Amino acid sequence: MEWFPVKLLTGSFNRCGRDWGKNQGCFINPFCRLYLITKGGAHVLIGEREHELRSGNAYFLPGNLPSRNRCDDFMEVYWVHFAPQSLWLEYFLDRYKEVHVWPLDRLRFWKPVYSLLKEFPLPENSPGNYRLQSFFLFLLSDLLEEKPPEDDTPLLLRLKNALLFMDREYLRNPPLSVLAAKAGMAPNYFHRKFKEVFPGFTPHSYMETKRMRDAKALLATGHSLKETAEMTGYANVFYFSRSFKKVFRKSPSQARKEINS
Amino acid sequence: MEWFPVKLLTGSFNRCGRDWGKNQGCFINPFCRLYLITKGGAHVLIGEREHELRSGNAYFLPGNLPSRNRCDDFMEVYWVHFAPQSLWLEYFLDRYKEVHVWPLDRLRFWKPVYSLLKEFPLPENSPGNYRLQSFFLFLLSDLLEEKPPEDDTPLLLRLKNALLFMDREYLRNPPLSVLAAKAGMAPNYFHRKFKEVFPGFTPHSYMETKRMRDAKALLATGHSLKETAEMTGYANVFYFSRSFKKVFRKSPSQARKEINS
Repeated sequence: MEWFPVKLLTGSFNRCGRDWGKNQGCFINPFCRLYLITKGGAHVLIGEREHELRSGNAYFLPGNLPSRNRCDDFMEVYWVHFAPQSLWLEYFLDRYKEVHVWPLDRLRFWKPVYSLLKEFPLPENSPGNYRLQSFFLFLLSDLLEEKPPEDDTPLLLRLKNALLFMDREYLRNPPLSVLAAKAGMAPNYFHRKFKEVFPGFTPHSYMETKRMRDAKALLATGHSLKETAEMTGYANVFYFSRSFKKVFRKSPSQARKEINS
Repeated sequence: MEWFPVKLLTGSFNRCGRDWGKNQGCFINPFCRLYLITKGGAHVLIGEREHELRSGNAYFLPGNLPSRNRCDDFMEVYWVHFAPQSLWLEYFLDRYKEVHVWPLDRLRFWKPVYSLLKEFPLPENSPGNYRLQSFFLFLLSDLLEEKPPEDDTPLLLRLKNALLFMDREYLRNPPLSVLAAKAGMAPNYFHRKFKEVFPGFTPHSYMETKRMRDAKALLATGHSLKETAEMTGYANVFYFSRSFKKVFRKSPSQARKEINS
């Protein structure tokens, strides 16, 4: 059972003008972005630094950082917003706070592939969608190569097996003792170390959040509350709704209404 | 929740001599193969046709067909055996009975990537492993493009939603009524059509087989019977063992002994 490590959320090709980002101001952007700029340019604030985006380059912009977009003239851009699907990659991308640049020239093999972003989203299991996923794996491999997570994080290395296990098994909500054993740690110690690496989360609240993100996607594609609860590992709609509220601060039915409106 | 569509089972780079395939004779090869031949050549029987494998070409050889290998001189080859992880791709590759050829020249962009097969298996989440997966998605997209499954299979198009759903949800063993609804069919009709498309399987025996394949992999990586049963959706070790025996004709403990010996 292997996962494709990222989820491509939205994408397209656009010509942005001076109004780009004007209404948004500075905000915490929750997803990672890939911009491939064919003409013009713009400026993006990521964290505390402003970056110039220039035609002829591709940019990986990390998520979960304060950001602001500004365009003084115009920019023609292929773009995708994406989110890691695996805990391991999530951790890796969370640590990756810089902007990565590829000259488009170095990506020319991929030009017919990223041009497909004009038709995003492509049908599941279509050749085009496979090519787009292939492209993403290739770009991610560049990021990983540039900044291998092993280098400065002996703790992460020890947690790695447990993290990979949680990525696969979060729907089943494995007990703390099983997770800790994967990392070769005592349960309490594992719990503490996990909180150090993922501030704001415990192992179980992390897996719960992942289940609830799945639930949100299922609700958005028309599944009933009962079906969604079952598919995310809850035998009982009541417990499911309670978890959902805890994570999203609204009930599943409210969330569905908002999605459908 | 998206899956990586294939599992890379084994791979390497080898120089084969005249003894290649001699002891195997003709047998049903259960997995798909990719051969990238850098020197020499060989012959492979696939189904009823013998194919010459020549240096300077890459070959996709479909699985589940009678096959025989023969080498009159020598062959230097990067190779991988792989299996589809998704029902949809499994169906697609099952219908794909021909040999697909790529001139290596057309894959020259990928040379540093397939050269990594010398180090197979690569660590999970390593840049090399991402690149190898990227390469596979790219090759699969070529196969899909050459032979789009939609073309001659209106039945498959109708089953598609149910198949994709089963790929995701087989661990949860969704009821027939839910599966049939995904295909917009009445349960009995769906059951009959599924058997037509996947001879030897019912929707539930298919999902059971997938769960048991997962179970086998979990046992092989040192999980206990109880853990494995839980992780493959069985609350009860007895029912789990019964399913396992049905699929593999041996008990989980026997299977584990064989794996460890």
